[in-house]
Amino acid sequence: MHISSAGSQRAGSVWLKMPSSVWLWALSVAVLTGNLFSAAAYERTERNCSLTPPYLPSTAVNTTLQLQELRGQMLPLNISAYIIPGTDAHLVHLLSVIINPSGFKNLVCVCVCVVLISCVFFFCQSEYIASRDARMAFMTGFTGSAGTAVVTQTKAALWTDSRYWVQAERQMDCNWELEKDVSIISVAEWLISEVPPGGNIGFDPFLFSLQTQESYAMSLESSNRILKSIPVNLVDQVWKERPPLPPYNLTRLPDRVIQRTWQMKVDQIRSVMTSNPYQPTALLLSALDETAWLFNLRGNDIPYNPFFYSYTLLTLDEIWLFVHTDRVSEDLKVYLSASCTGPLCVQLKSYDSVRENLKTYVAQPEVKVWIGTEYTNYALYEIITPQEKLMTSSYSPVLTTKAVKDETEERILREAHVRDAVAVIQLLIWLEKSVPKGNVTELSAAEYVNYCRSKQKDNKGPSFETISASGPNAALAHYSPSEGTSRRLTVDEMYLVDSGGQYLDGTTDITRTVHWGTPTDMQKEAFTRVLMGNIEISQTVFPSGTSGVRIEMLGRRALWEVGLNYGHGTGHGVGNYFGVHEWPVGFQTNNIPFRAGMFTSIEPGYYKENDFGIRIEDIAVTIPVHTKYGHNFLTFDTVSLVPYDRKLIDTSLLSAKQLQWLNKYYETIRRLVGPELDKQGLHEEKDWMLRNTEPFTEAGSSASVCSSSLTLIALVFALHNVV
Amino acid sequence: MHISSAGSQRAGSVWLKMPSSVWLWALSVAVLTGNLFSAAAYERTERNCSLTPPYLPSTAVNTTLQLQELRGQMLPLNISAYIIPGTDAHLVHLLSVIINPSGFKNLVCVCVCVVLISCVFFFCQSEYIASRDARMAFMTGFTGSAGTAVVTQTKAALWTDSRYWVQAERQMDCNWELEKDVSIISVAEWLISEVPPGGNIGFDPFLFSLQTQESYAMSLESSNRILKSIPVNLVDQVWKERPPLPPYNLTRLPDRVIQRTWQMKVDQIRSVMTSNPYQPTALLLSALDETAWLFNLRGNDIPYNPFFYSYTLLTLDEIWLFVHTDRVSEDLKVYLSASCTGPLCVQLKSYDSVRENLKTYVAQPEVKVWIGTEYTNYALYEIITPQEKLMTSSYSPVLTTKAVKDETEERILREAHVRDAVAVIQLLIWLEKSVPKGNVTELSAAEYVNYCRSKQKDNKGPSFETISASGPNAALAHYSPSEGTSRRLTVDEMYLVDSGGQYLDGTTDITRTVHWGTPTDMQKEAFTRVLMGNIEISQTVFPSGTSGVRIEMLGRRALWEVGLNYGHGTGHGVGNYFGVHEWPVGFQTNNIPFRAGMFTSIEPGYYKENDFGIRIEDIAVTIPVHTKYGHNFLTFDTVSLVPYDRKLIDTSLLSAKQLQWLNKYYETIRRLVGPELDKQGLHEEKDWMLRNTEPFTEAGSSASVCSSSLTLIALVFALHNVV
Repeated sequence: MHISSAGSQRAGSVWLKMPSSVWLWALSVAVLTGNLFSAAAYERTERNCSLTPPYLPSTAVNTTLQLQELRGQMLPLNISAYIIPGTDAHLVHLLSVIINPSGFKNLVCVCVCVVLISCVFFFCQSEYIASRDARMAFMTGFTGSAGTAVVTQTKAALWTDSRYWVQAERQMDCNWELEKDVSIISVAEWLISEVPPGGNIGFDPFLFSLQTQESYAMSLESSNRILKSIPVNLVDQVWKERPPLPPYNLTRLPDRVIQRTWQMKVDQIRSVMTSNPYQPTALLLSALDETAWLFNLRGNDIPYNPFFYSYTLLTLDEIWLFVHTDRVSEDLKVYLSASCTGPLCVQLKSYDSVRENLKTYVAQPEVKVWIGTEYTNYALYEIITPQEKLMTSSYSPVLTTKAVKDETEERILREAHVRDAVAVIQLLIWLEKSVPKGNVTELSAAEYVNYCRSKQKDNKGPSFETISASGPNAALAHYSPSEGTSRRLTVDEMYLVDSGGQYLDGTTDITRTVHWGTPTDMQKEAFTRVLMGNIEISQTVFPSGTSGVRIEMLGRRALWEVGLNYGHGTGHGVGNYFGVHEWPVGFQTNNIPFRAGMFTSIEPGYYKENDFGIRIEDIAVTIPVHTKYGHNFLTFDTVSLVPYDRKLIDTSLLSAKQLQWLNKYYETIRRLVGPELDKQGLHEEKDWMLRNTEPFTEAGSSASVCSSSLTLIALVFALHNVV
Repeated sequence: MHISSAGSQRAGSVWLKMPSSVWLWALSVAVLTGNLFSAAAYERTERNCSLTPPYLPSTAVNTTLQLQELRGQMLPLNISAYIIPGTDAHLVHLLSVIINPSGFKNLVCVCVCVVLISCVFFFCQSEYIASRDARMAFMTGFTGSAGTAVVTQTKAALWTDSRYWVQAERQMDCNWELEKDVSIISVAEWLISEVPPGGNIGFDPFLFSLQTQESYAMSLESSNRILKSIPVNLVDQVWKERPPLPPYNLTRLPDRVIQRTWQMKVDQIRSVMTSNPYQPTALLLSALDETAWLFNLRGNDIPYNPFFYSYTLLTLDEIWLFVHTDRVSEDLKVYLSASCTGPLCVQLKSYDSVRENLKTYVAQPEVKVWIGTEYTNYALYEIITPQEKLMTSSYSPVLTTKAVKDETEERILREAHVRDAVAVIQLLIWLEKSVPKGNVTELSAAEYVNYCRSKQKDNKGPSFETISASGPNAALAHYSPSEGTSRRLTVDEMYLVDSGGQYLDGTTDITRTVHWGTPTDMQKEAFTRVLMGNIEISQTVFPSGTSGVRIEMLGRRALWEVGLNYGHGTGHGVGNYFGVHEWPVGFQTNNIPFRAGMFTSIEPGYYKENDFGIRIEDIAVTIPVHTKYGHNFLTFDTVSLVPYDRKLIDTSLLSAKQLQWLNKYYETIRRLVGPELDKQGLHEEKDWMLRNTEPFTEAGSSASVCSSSLTLIALVFALHNVV
């Protein structure tokens, strides 16, 4: 994400989006207007492969050697092309949303848009991958978080979406073509044009989701090109300096954050298995948070995510845990009962042996392996044959069980949010004081909030790379500040900060948008309508079992009314010291229905290109609600506890009910955050919090109706006096 | 649907739902309370196969002979079981909704409930089938509209859902088991228990949707039972008195209701085909309304639906129309250019030759046939091989094109609704006068509304069997009155009437719920909240391309707030002289996104078991709407034009905006229906309409806020006076 771009600090984001054809024009305008760019701004930053010799910027990576070696690997395998996705072997999942990708926070899983007739597929990846898994970047030089590379004996091409085109042109040398249509169909068409009929196209099945494999197969096999699964990664064969595994051992969660021991969880999941009519004999867990959750363990293999490389095969009477066994301490072996073989003993097996072991298991008679298709890679899927030994559901019972927090998890996740609120309040106070002085940048603000969180109990660092974005930067979908793009914060621009923390007891994620000067009417209206969306979802009452996708329009409705909208999803699950996007909870089409005890973000927004961006994000938990006539209804209880910028709220747009919700929420902040601020001795913060949670008194939209009545009454009253 | 039930008229619906175990109790209560049932009520109406000899009511059908003959047919084919679905060869479709089946108006397509882990499939059928297609009824005696029968050499079983259990027990003899779990898994499990491993299970592929076949195959083939497609229907072989084809010829629509000639439509669809990246060479149309729409033709083969048996294979340079060719008049042959073979000539081919002809077409090199998977039967699907000759989408481009009405279609569909409103107003006036006299029944009310419609220009009869339901009957999901169940309408019960008409220019569908006495507070609240749901959907503004499923919760929200809900869908498309449920428009998961010019019903409801039922249904069209900031937004314009029962509206629950919508709607009724009533010289109707569309003056829910302010002011005022 750290684009090594040139350009002055303020101009950075502009250069970033500028197509090469306007370079000369921009240059002359700059000269004519006497605008002071740094000298670096004049350097041509994108490659030009049509020149002789080609022009390559200093940021381009020479990939000749690795391409040559990869091609050497391909020859003996008789494959004409090799596909290198940007993903890793875990967490591969698809968001099948109709409207638009969730473009934020590097949530790079791009949607499967089923547009009536033709299906457009794009690649989906882990949200973050470890450096040792960055095979696409090693091969191409391109470090963007979304893409697919393909290599033949004579050509090499990279597919990435529009967010990354400039970056790719800066990082790739002329060995590589850049392809801009990111559908699998487009990759397949390219392959068909480059690979002769009957030719083999190789891929690492560990890096393909079931759906990705199926899409390629569908496109290629009807054209007589053979998709060939090669379970040994060819890039790894030529990547001599591939980063090693991180040295960290696995750690177990302290008892104080646990209600269910791993043995209880294993029992719980086994009872789900035995009660399933298809009678699975084993459950294969591929998503990293599945294994971590099951054993109450955490690791440090993936940036921002406390995961460790692992698979689990849970049978009705055995437990096979596939990990790098040297990272399991003797204490942990005792904890896992690793020296026995009973139904509650964990048999440790090498991470790399999962395929072989699964094959052995499947070879037995009368077995049936249950997999969650959204998270299982093709390498494991393809060996579960014949068909009757396989049982599938979108999500494994671990993910669906984990989605509903137990009492302890709910309590501690709420507690983490109280401490997290303290950190965010400290950031907002610091910004309020420092921004007018002119010495805060997006980057330093991001660093400051990390610093504030680090002072809170049980903090384990940020839960994702902070989005700290001022003015137009906040309207960029995937933006996080870098040296080249970081803007100075001023009282003239809106500022959006989307950040979160990992705590031993919970993961947080909150977005606030603020303005330290005078917002325009349009900014106030847009902010208020985004807030109305947040409130409308938060206060809605719905039957338990309702899918998020059926209520997420409430987050958009106030915007729709005036012709505004936003192009990302409205919320995602969060967990207890897990990934900040915890599937399968949320408001997308493929999320599971809401039950009591699920935590989700609610995050409507509005983005005006080249101008500003607004997002208001809170975490809320589904709780049972008493209704006049019915049972089994739910509503949301907001657990993020930071007040919204009062300056940006136009209360005349709010309904009486919305205003009432807002005041009640502010009461909650006072009730919960107040004592925490007292406990931490933070008097300035307490004053700020109280000031910013003063109840609103204006009567909302019904006010206009009432006020005219009041005017009438006043008139009568005046007349009366006259009489 | 005409249940030949015993019981007195008033008690009918109670008996209908009564499990056999409470018969004796009910009988004794009836005797004790001296309640006067007709003698027939004492007759035991359900079979008892455990007695010796078995007890069979007079309504049971002796099926021994047909079973014997069917088993004779099965023997030479070496099949151990034969599956007989209740469907026909056309319109097979699935509603994949998460919550609940749309249980109304014989919309028998029951949902695919994807409940986290296990998929439960049920059978889907045409909404209405012709008597000659009622094979399940012929074999079993059971005439309900949903079910599947299976016959082996020794056993026979019927699966149907809870709505039909009593009916099945009354109509079937003891040759048949009744099975109550209607999932395909349940049928498959039964088959696995009855058919030995390796055994063949036969089915008529014309009666299976792709999804049905896949579900059976998945369940059976993993257990080594072979699902065998037998394209000649075995029931037809033994059904000696199978009703013949109706004698009606096909008819063409008059020019005044058409904007696009069939040649223009063919051009339009071909251009969709050529612009598709998969390059289909042919389009296969299986749904009856696809062919009828394409050629601007109508027929009379299916009750309530102006369809004719047909398939079309539209290639880029030929048109093959599969019909019963003797029903095509010479005039029509000229109209269809049936004597030539060019790209705009229709080649007539025998209806029964579709499979053979398709096979011939597919055998050619370089062809690719596009099918809509929701409406194509397995008999045609299975012969499109190999895979690369097939192209699929959920709906054919004819259905998606047809979903957006052209200007003429929109105009005439609106006009049909004006005339339809006259008929419904006449019904409501007649009921208002006649019900207090005590001589109206559900059946006579249903007949009356048909009569009123028949007097309107271009009427072609009802568009479905009228749901005319009083009191508790209105709470039954699939209710239409019969001799046995029809209640007398009284001022003490709510009454629901859901009816529609076929007109040359459009199909209508409207539901009104009324009360001629004093409704309870709960009835008023429920009615008002249903109305609020209707209004909330109708007035919402949303981006073009939004799926109905994303906004349908607005129809439920006011009910959810107090813990109420309803168990059916919220709306479906309607067409111009077509089926009253016109797919793929509507609010279900598998409906297509809304674009301007689509007509859908909006029909929230509330049902209190054994007490009353409320539904308010209007047809609305999506229209572009001007917004403050954006473009390409839509809203609904309601085209059904009948006022709601004022007595049932509690205006204090309505928001100011809802009340405003209601008053504007009433203005529209006056503006559009007034002149039509004048034109038809209907003075009483005009007066009634004007009386019932008086604007509401109460200030809505904001009133309560205001009124307290007003109280305060009054208080101040009073104090002031005192001072």
